[in-house]
Amino acid sequence: MDILFRKVTYMLSLNTVEAIKYNSFRNGKENKMGSKNKERINILRNMMIKQEIDLVIVYTADEHGSEYIDEHYKLREYLSGFTGSAGTLVVTGKEAVLWTDGRYFIQAQEELKGSGIELYKDGLPHVPKVLEYVRSFVKKRKSTRIGADLKLISMKVKHELDGLKELGVEVVDVDLSASVWKDRPEETRNPIYYLPDEISGYTVSDKLAQIRKRLEERNMDAIFLTDLSDIMWTFNVRGSDIRYSPVAVSYGYVDVDSAFLFADMRCCDNALRDELKRQGVTLREYDDTDDYIRWLKGRRIVCDYTSLNAHMAEMLSGNELTDERSYIYIRKHIKNKTECELAKDCHIEDGLALTKFIYRIKKLVREGAEEGRGINEFEAAMMLDNMRLSIKGNRGLSFETISAYGSNGAIVHYSPDKRNSAMLKAEGFLLVDSGGQYEGATTDVTRTIALGKITGEMKLDYTAVLKGMLDLSDAVFLEGTRGENLDILARRPIWERYKDYRHGTGHGVGAMLNVHEGPQAFRYRILKDYPQPPLEAGMITSDEPGIYLEGKYGIRIENLLLCTERKSNEWGRFLGFDTLTLVPYETDAIVPEMLTARQKQLINEYHRTIYYLYSPRMEREEREWLSAVTAGI
Amino acid sequence: MDILFRKVTYMLSLNTVEAIKYNSFRNGKENKMGSKNKERINILRNMMIKQEIDLVIVYTADEHGSEYIDEHYKLREYLSGFTGSAGTLVVTGKEAVLWTDGRYFIQAQEELKGSGIELYKDGLPHVPKVLEYVRSFVKKRKSTRIGADLKLISMKVKHELDGLKELGVEVVDVDLSASVWKDRPEETRNPIYYLPDEISGYTVSDKLAQIRKRLEERNMDAIFLTDLSDIMWTFNVRGSDIRYSPVAVSYGYVDVDSAFLFADMRCCDNALRDELKRQGVTLREYDDTDDYIRWLKGRRIVCDYTSLNAHMAEMLSGNELTDERSYIYIRKHIKNKTECELAKDCHIEDGLALTKFIYRIKKLVREGAEEGRGINEFEAAMMLDNMRLSIKGNRGLSFETISAYGSNGAIVHYSPDKRNSAMLKAEGFLLVDSGGQYEGATTDVTRTIALGKITGEMKLDYTAVLKGMLDLSDAVFLEGTRGENLDILARRPIWERYKDYRHGTGHGVGAMLNVHEGPQAFRYRILKDYPQPPLEAGMITSDEPGIYLEGKYGIRIENLLLCTERKSNEWGRFLGFDTLTLVPYETDAIVPEMLTARQKQLINEYHRTIYYLYSPRMEREEREWLSAVTAGI
Repeated sequence: MDILFRKVTYMLSLNTVEAIKYNSFRNGKENKMGSKNKERINILRNMMIKQEIDLVIVYTADEHGSEYIDEHYKLREYLSGFTGSAGTLVVTGKEAVLWTDGRYFIQAQEELKGSGIELYKDGLPHVPKVLEYVRSFVKKRKSTRIGADLKLISMKVKHELDGLKELGVEVVDVDLSASVWKDRPEETRNPIYYLPDEISGYTVSDKLAQIRKRLEERNMDAIFLTDLSDIMWTFNVRGSDIRYSPVAVSYGYVDVDSAFLFADMRCCDNALRDELKRQGVTLREYDDTDDYIRWLKGRRIVCDYTSLNAHMAEMLSGNELTDERSYIYIRKHIKNKTECELAKDCHIEDGLALTKFIYRIKKLVREGAEEGRGINEFEAAMMLDNMRLSIKGNRGLSFETISAYGSNGAIVHYSPDKRNSAMLKAEGFLLVDSGGQYEGATTDVTRTIALGKITGEMKLDYTAVLKGMLDLSDAVFLEGTRGENLDILARRPIWERYKDYRHGTGHGVGAMLNVHEGPQAFRYRILKDYPQPPLEAGMITSDEPGIYLEGKYGIRIENLLLCTERKSNEWGRFLGFDTLTLVPYETDAIVPEMLTARQKQLINEYHRTIYYLYSPRMEREEREWLSAVTAGI
Repeated sequence: MDILFRKVTYMLSLNTVEAIKYNSFRNGKENKMGSKNKERINILRNMMIKQEIDLVIVYTADEHGSEYIDEHYKLREYLSGFTGSAGTLVVTGKEAVLWTDGRYFIQAQEELKGSGIELYKDGLPHVPKVLEYVRSFVKKRKSTRIGADLKLISMKVKHELDGLKELGVEVVDVDLSASVWKDRPEETRNPIYYLPDEISGYTVSDKLAQIRKRLEERNMDAIFLTDLSDIMWTFNVRGSDIRYSPVAVSYGYVDVDSAFLFADMRCCDNALRDELKRQGVTLREYDDTDDYIRWLKGRRIVCDYTSLNAHMAEMLSGNELTDERSYIYIRKHIKNKTECELAKDCHIEDGLALTKFIYRIKKLVREGAEEGRGINEFEAAMMLDNMRLSIKGNRGLSFETISAYGSNGAIVHYSPDKRNSAMLKAEGFLLVDSGGQYEGATTDVTRTIALGKITGEMKLDYTAVLKGMLDLSDAVFLEGTRGENLDILARRPIWERYKDYRHGTGHGVGAMLNVHEGPQAFRYRILKDYPQPPLEAGMITSDEPGIYLEGKYGIRIENLLLCTERKSNEWGRFLGFDTLTLVPYETDAIVPEMLTARQKQLINEYHRTIYYLYSPRMEREEREWLSAVTAGI
């Protein structure tokens, strides 16, 4: 047994108090008592009376439109008691309503008990949307003052609210947290570090030159950067202010002859300052961003309205703002050669850990079943997390590990909780979706592991999911092809079984940045308001079809695909995918007769590569197991 | 030999004069001498001087935005001498320029010789578009009067021209043909006939009720129908005013309490008038359309700006016009049960004729080669056309037959010409793309026929095309899926060979209407300005991938697919396709090792059906041949 495994067994032997502490760290705050939240809503209402505000909207947001947010910004959670990652709270003099989506209906119902807040199940047919609710409230009145923190609403949302002006609405900027939140957690501000060229691939001055060229081509003067991962990429820096995202809270500004990075000066050392200066970037204090940009006048400035907040937009109001997707200027979604090489290397290390985990969890469950000891979903996740965190160059997880056993696998966004975690038995599927942040790369991988006996239907479904995942990864396509064109390849074997998975087939993945990164995706819905660019060599996208049968089981298989050039000829430039993820499939769950000759070839070649790479780094027992599960079909 | 075959041999024995006459019927007018066109352009310029017009634009168009147009409207051809189906002529005091696309570059170069008209090859990189040319002409001047026939430009084009107003442009409405065209052909006006319910499936009053319901749902008062096939479908009538399209020149208007069909009264008999009256439709004289509609005021009227001409739009200017794709109101693209049944029946008759043609052409070529007699592409097309025209219920061809031998097959829109027609030899591929109009249905089918020995590359390419065609036809998909999602299924085996076809994979097909019918299509480009609705049960769409190697050969295989419901369950409503076309594939060109088990199954089942349906209706020799070519792979 190697050192990793000793660490895991240590974690498994934690006592209850420690486990609960860890759990609380993993799952956010404990459920507040509803009455406490009732009181908090009342404090909010008193503030509303004083400031003559008729309705308050509290979004789940930070100042940068981030997907994950710092505790400092969780006002919606503080007020309502609902701890899910997505939700909007609206409070009027008489009503308090919370919207959240299907992932959280049950949880929200529990957590809102006694708070006097009504749950609106977003997405269900006859449930009004937030804006519809607000509109109908406003329509009954002559005039309405709506309170919202302009720093915490994007321009996209602001425009929606502005649409209500003709109904007598005035949007009032209020610092809601300052007014009502006692003991608000401090903002997380950790050191910012510079990524050397051997990790970033391009110097900052190279990147600035490219951005300036594109600004000129599109006849724009400047770009104001608000999305944190865009800023990190542009200035070759990273931080750790937001969980799962190696980003620092910051703003960026680039025009033809200057470039500014606004960040917390306490987090920047002289080395960073000097390096940025050498690259043509001036460091400025984060809190002075608005002071600086309000002096800009008469410029054509590119902004991303999904991450630009309304307060900053107001600071820029003397300019001509253009809402454009930032990927046109900041091409961080096209990974450069260095980023691609690092991604390949990191996936080998990440994959080795997950492969060893699969061996161990199967063994633990089997032995546990024999010896009357047990391990649950939560402990399995902890074990994997620790194996991953011990990898050289690891910088944390890229999202909260999903470890879902049996029927829990059918809950797409399930994450285990120590208190309600299912015990693993030597039968059925364990679905594990996990990933890490590494120096230079981000991983995201799902394997569905058979812990013992599985049924015929499970095998047929597993094989259909695997066929779809393989067919998409094997696509050859002309330049100009989009994710919407290829989605059918993954979905087809599942649709042929008259089943479906109700999520996209894949999302872009960052390079040591967010695990969900735009602009490309695999999906079949063609969205008018959210067009995506064609696939290009250098994009990294997940390929993760699934089948989820409520109350029975869930299957998902996910690899990351790197788009690469295949051939250019008189017909055009052909692209394809290299599979980055290297973790064996569940051969016990494959029905060989369902596979085409090509699919068998793909599986066998993949397994041969895995055995070649991992077997020299394994103990004898592990190696024997790997040899068996990667044997040819 | 049956009567059909005697007719064909008669056609083949026509003398030269008759053949040229037939050819001229098939291919439009003879090439005009360039000098004659120079003279015509001069007459146009004299008119321009008199009317103080600086620039004239002549589009290829009728008053209804039709794809094929009547001789009466071919002013661009009359002026320029260029006989292709697509082109735009711009004449100024000094210059005359013609735009046409890649299909016609060589032909246009020939036909424009000596006319003084310059050819602009539309679509090539540095060639300005019509509007760019006009804009740069206009920019050099203080003010410009542009002459165009407002009846012959769509509102879409009108809006483009209106965009030049700020540059001092005035668009002047001129009846160009009246001013310059001597001996202009009369408009074709043939009798209009009523389609009985057993062919149309729905009564006119049913259709009007549906249209009114949709108008109400979308808060509109009326729809003004300008697309001829929309009008035919709505009023259950047909005509024969435009070649290959069973349509009558007409307008239609439907509001909540009235419905009008504007048509040439000389073409309408009392039976038609009575029937329409019974269904709630008033017949009015076509030439009085504008007189009638100019009285409409203050209504919200739905129009289709691709077929509404600028003159008619002006007549409606007292109303609020909304440009909406007509398929939202006129759901002719969703074939009803009767239309589907008739399509199936007609495809059996049409397919039998083409199957017999394949047998005969192979035999003729083989025997001709032995006996020193020959048959060319053009004669082969004539033979097939005559076989098809003799089918009971046939109402003509649905487009000009493509019969392309050898390297001509690589020219996608090739149609044979008696003078330049290639002789068929007992080797290589003959690509035949053809179709017919029938009582209740329209067919469109392509087969690539091996006339003798073919190379290994040809077989590999043929099999790739067949695999693609089969994979698309075999798709199972959820409601909400679009043509852009499925296109990859047809293209994939071809892209895997690093080849491509530079056209869409399929187009909608009418029911006894236009062979090209919107709104759905199979293509992979996602066009912002041309969104298409999801696939629905009842749509008929072609599935026609290909491979074209310049100077070598062309392969295309085309079946029509009827979208049908497969299963509804908790995941949604699943759809699939029934293949309507029934003509054997070229088994000599199939490489069985390239096929999946499923593809083999599809081919074998298809061929068994064909043998079962056609063998009882064949001569002994034909039947023996069919038995051999439909034997299992």
